[in-house]
Amino acid sequence: MTGAMQITPIRGIGPIRHKDKLSSLILESTELRDRDVVVVSSKAVAKAEGRIVAIDHDDTEARIRLIESEARRVLRRRGELLITETHHGFVCANSGVDFSNVPDGFAVLLPMDPDRSARKIRDRIQAGLGIEIAVVVSDTFGRSWRNGVTDVAIGCAGIRPVVDLRGTGDMFGRILKTTQVCVADQIAAAAEMVMGKADGIPAAVVSGIDPDWFGQGSIRSDVVRRYDEDMFR
Amino acid sequence: MTGAMQITPIRGIGPIRHKDKLSSLILESTELRDRDVVVVSSKAVAKAEGRIVAIDHDDTEARIRLIESEARRVLRRRGELLITETHHGFVCANSGVDFSNVPDGFAVLLPMDPDRSARKIRDRIQAGLGIEIAVVVSDTFGRSWRNGVTDVAIGCAGIRPVVDLRGTGDMFGRILKTTQVCVADQIAAAAEMVMGKADGIPAAVVSGIDPDWFGQGSIRSDVVRRYDEDMFR
Repeated sequence: MTGAMQITPIRGIGPIRHKDKLSSLILESTELRDRDVVVVSSKAVAKAEGRIVAIDHDDTEARIRLIESEARRVLRRRGELLITETHHGFVCANSGVDFSNVPDGFAVLLPMDPDRSARKIRDRIQAGLGIEIAVVVSDTFGRSWRNGVTDVAIGCAGIRPVVDLRGTGDMFGRILKTTQVCVADQIAAAAEMVMGKADGIPAAVVSGIDPDWFGQGSIRSDVVRRYDEDMFR
Repeated sequence: MTGAMQITPIRGIGPIRHKDKLSSLILESTELRDRDVVVVSSKAVAKAEGRIVAIDHDDTEARIRLIESEARRVLRRRGELLITETHHGFVCANSGVDFSNVPDGFAVLLPMDPDRSARKIRDRIQAGLGIEIAVVVSDTFGRSWRNGVTDVAIGCAGIRPVVDLRGTGDMFGRILKTTQVCVADQIAAAAEMVMGKADGIPAAVVSGIDPDWFGQGSIRSDVVRRYDEDMFR
């Protein structure tokens, strides 16, 4: 909450293939510094982890079956668009199954456990460099009530995704009651602006975040709202 | 979608009072360059525009009446928390009425027309400097399905808030079908990270955004989803 921040795309990583080591590709392509946050796209992580399935893009029924198999619940349906709750608990379009930016005849699923993916990438980068960093895995989700998609965090490591400002005094000395800011989603949103959709830049570095945000946490436990606590499901 | 971006807090503006000229305060406190985006907090705009009302913070019924008077619809209610649709069409907690960071006995409402507020600030800054900039008015909203608040854009000028990537080819040469990115919300989210809640920094500069995003648009017409198009209201 202090100085300026920088958001820098990591170029030169190229198309990701199954069994690629993202940590090595990132280390080869950029110079990381202590307290940087590395944001990696969900699709890059999923491809490296082999979360790709064969599917006939023109077979609507097969596509819907695949989307349903990745869902815990179907919340809404409008034609071929399904709003689902994934097995992770994310609410998004089509269970996050992506039919674009993949070779014809294939689809990319969400990583099985994006928090674990983030931890693995972080551990390997930290071991290689001897510095402290955080990793955020991002994906592009729609929202209720507002047009346009934005990037959110679906996995993280080394950062507290929700920063609790409860107990911090406001400018008039009273206690702020309920301001819990999802900084992980804001970091993902910021990084999307230099990664883009069609450019093939799968990662970015966000520098200059508040040092207090580094710590323990996961998207699954801290950000995903429980079904029974949600007023809009 | 190309180079690096910088997010810089604008310091030294100090507490905002009714009839303050935000454009002048911003011009005195920072050096803007062509194609910068100035993000200003909704609360600063509201205070400058006199959108402050007297209210007894301990009078629950009066608070709820005020929240209801700022709403077009009450969507959900849990105790003293109301999720409402404001007269602008925003879905947020308590119609955006803010009882923190104001002197005791007062509350701050949302600006009457945040797109117009953004246009005014932009026009005055551009007239003063002879450069092209954009302005985003931001506020902190909760979301369905995910814990933690994030900043979103409630007004803008000089920028297309939703950038349509429909028609842009993906890496495999096919057409991306429906990727409309709400860059205004991503800019607001990025800026929040240097503005913070309790620090009294009411504005930030985001530099380095894609030049293609400059143009015409408003949050009200481009981002607010119509009631009858929304699957979750």
